[in-house]
Amino acid sequence: MSIDEAARTAAAAHLDRLAKPRGSLGRLEDVVVWAAGVQGRCPPSPFAAPRVVVVAGDHDVARLAGTSAYPPEVTAQMVAAMVAGTAAVCILAERAGAAVRVVDAGVAADYSGSEVPAEVAADRVRAGAGAIDRTDALTADELDRALALGRRLVTEERAAGGDLLVPGDLGIGNTTPAATLVAALTEEDVIAVTGRGTGIDDATWMRKVTAVRDALWRVRDDHDDPLALVRRVGGPDIAVLVGMLQAAAEQGLPVILDGVVVTAAALVAEELAPGSSDWWVAGHRSAEPAHTAALDRLGLSPLLELSLRLGEGTGALMALPVLQAALALAADMATFDSAGVSDRDPG
Amino acid sequence: MSIDEAARTAAAAHLDRLAKPRGSLGRLEDVVVWAAGVQGRCPPSPFAAPRVVVVAGDHDVARLAGTSAYPPEVTAQMVAAMVAGTAAVCILAERAGAAVRVVDAGVAADYSGSEVPAEVAADRVRAGAGAIDRTDALTADELDRALALGRRLVTEERAAGGDLLVPGDLGIGNTTPAATLVAALTEEDVIAVTGRGTGIDDATWMRKVTAVRDALWRVRDDHDDPLALVRRVGGPDIAVLVGMLQAAAEQGLPVILDGVVVTAAALVAEELAPGSSDWWVAGHRSAEPAHTAALDRLGLSPLLELSLRLGEGTGALMALPVLQAALALAADMATFDSAGVSDRDPG
Repeated sequence: MSIDEAARTAAAAHLDRLAKPRGSLGRLEDVVVWAAGVQGRCPPSPFAAPRVVVVAGDHDVARLAGTSAYPPEVTAQMVAAMVAGTAAVCILAERAGAAVRVVDAGVAADYSGSEVPAEVAADRVRAGAGAIDRTDALTADELDRALALGRRLVTEERAAGGDLLVPGDLGIGNTTPAATLVAALTEEDVIAVTGRGTGIDDATWMRKVTAVRDALWRVRDDHDDPLALVRRVGGPDIAVLVGMLQAAAEQGLPVILDGVVVTAAALVAEELAPGSSDWWVAGHRSAEPAHTAALDRLGLSPLLELSLRLGEGTGALMALPVLQAALALAADMATFDSAGVSDRDPG
Repeated sequence: MSIDEAARTAAAAHLDRLAKPRGSLGRLEDVVVWAAGVQGRCPPSPFAAPRVVVVAGDHDVARLAGTSAYPPEVTAQMVAAMVAGTAAVCILAERAGAAVRVVDAGVAADYSGSEVPAEVAADRVRAGAGAIDRTDALTADELDRALALGRRLVTEERAAGGDLLVPGDLGIGNTTPAATLVAALTEEDVIAVTGRGTGIDDATWMRKVTAVRDALWRVRDDHDDPLALVRRVGGPDIAVLVGMLQAAAEQGLPVILDGVVVTAAALVAEELAPGSSDWWVAGHRSAEPAHTAALDRLGLSPLLELSLRLGEGTGALMALPVLQAALALAADMATFDSAGVSDRDPG
């Protein structure tokens, strides 16, 4: 779906009529224009019903190649924390007036004995992505099911009234496939895209670099086939995020991008349907180097730079109040005329 | 007043017990530690009653030397917009749950025929600062009255329950004295500190550079006397801000710094009482080059960089929800123990 260029143009003109020096809202003016384009109206309004969808999955590469500082069981434990409302994403979402849904796309553990309701894992595509340094992450059928799940999630969130989507990620080891996808799609060097993830030490980082290198070697002939990359070196969670981002752009649901995992999926979605990124605003720049590479390729400049590396959608949710405040300014500030404030001399 | 170092240490340890990778909240962890120190408790809580105090003043240098894009009457018009609630600061404050007070410290115009209540201008120190490129901004008596007014405002805001202060500035031409003060206190070059303010053109910028240069020449022997600088090349509004920042640090009221005008006053206050800056967090980095010079000298790294150049406290108010969200995370996130989440291997 195309964004509304007329609304964008009108919003830029509207911003110049507000009783403030021209351009003095800086980056906020950019997001006001963006919101006008995706909302199709000028001035745009604060979003009424932001919806966070956290997609969880495990990655066997973390366990088998030892690329994470945390054991794999943390993924399921964090799903339980999200259900309980004690995870960071829940606290930020509540402050920002956003609903949170967590979807198990590929967690390896079961939830027996925990409070996680069955529907969270009802659509699980597979229990843990294949270890991408040595085998494919997904089968072709699993890829299809993951993409379809992502699409269905967008349809459901829209049906529930959502007018802004915040996709989030959760999964021990998920920055390894994300870095691999970004390297394959941007031709960045392995060393340049491989970050510290949850805070790994030097030895773990070296194992992670080796895993990314080996995964990239496996897909050396697939760089022009983004879906093959997702199937072979991505994972079920990342495939669900790709499906969500594709569907959101098709159906006209605007998105705040979060960190490296979501943005890697966004890079895939943009490759598949150029222009999808018109529907996205980058919430923040995380500490992961692959995130910057992906944002640069997408041509997106993040609103915030807080060195976050928590995932879950937390970076996007930190940016949400900034976005909403910008939209409140655009909607509610007086114009030079209405306020009786003298504009500068036109010359 | 000294901040609570024990609470800072406890907060750093508390952050490491939360169910998240260590350090993964990035810059947010810094502000949580800061808030623990100024609140004297761990974990710190979101601030309950932030108070914005916008200090307005005119500067004859703008009119006589032609350093602004806007006519001087805009200052009084914007005071009226703040009273009416349509100014940017009012909209942002309402979203962030902060009260707004506007104080006329040195506006040149009167408010006859407008809705501005008499108390706004009841403590006006003088009608417009002297044109600092050729005469002193204030007399010694005016300086004393302005500093005392700033101190009284802090006492009043604390008495009203305020637990966080957001000083704001308002006044056509006020970046000219701010740049002058920053240049005098940091020894930065005139060209390096003189910015575009409200968005001036090249010819106006050249006049502004000349005015800053001439003002600096007048105070060439006063660089070690910050109050002499405020009196000679500052203004009533800036002097009130200095008094506020001094009193806030003395009385233990934490502050979010806004843009270049507030930060120039902060630089003076820090020179007068080193350590005052322990009570401050920098909300944003504005588009004014003198702002960066002042922040660097203060050793403060801003939370946001949005290229704002509106003043009024707007940059600090954009940062307020980010600060509050960080404090909510620190207060409400589960710990590894409470959430049953496995921490990394200690080795």
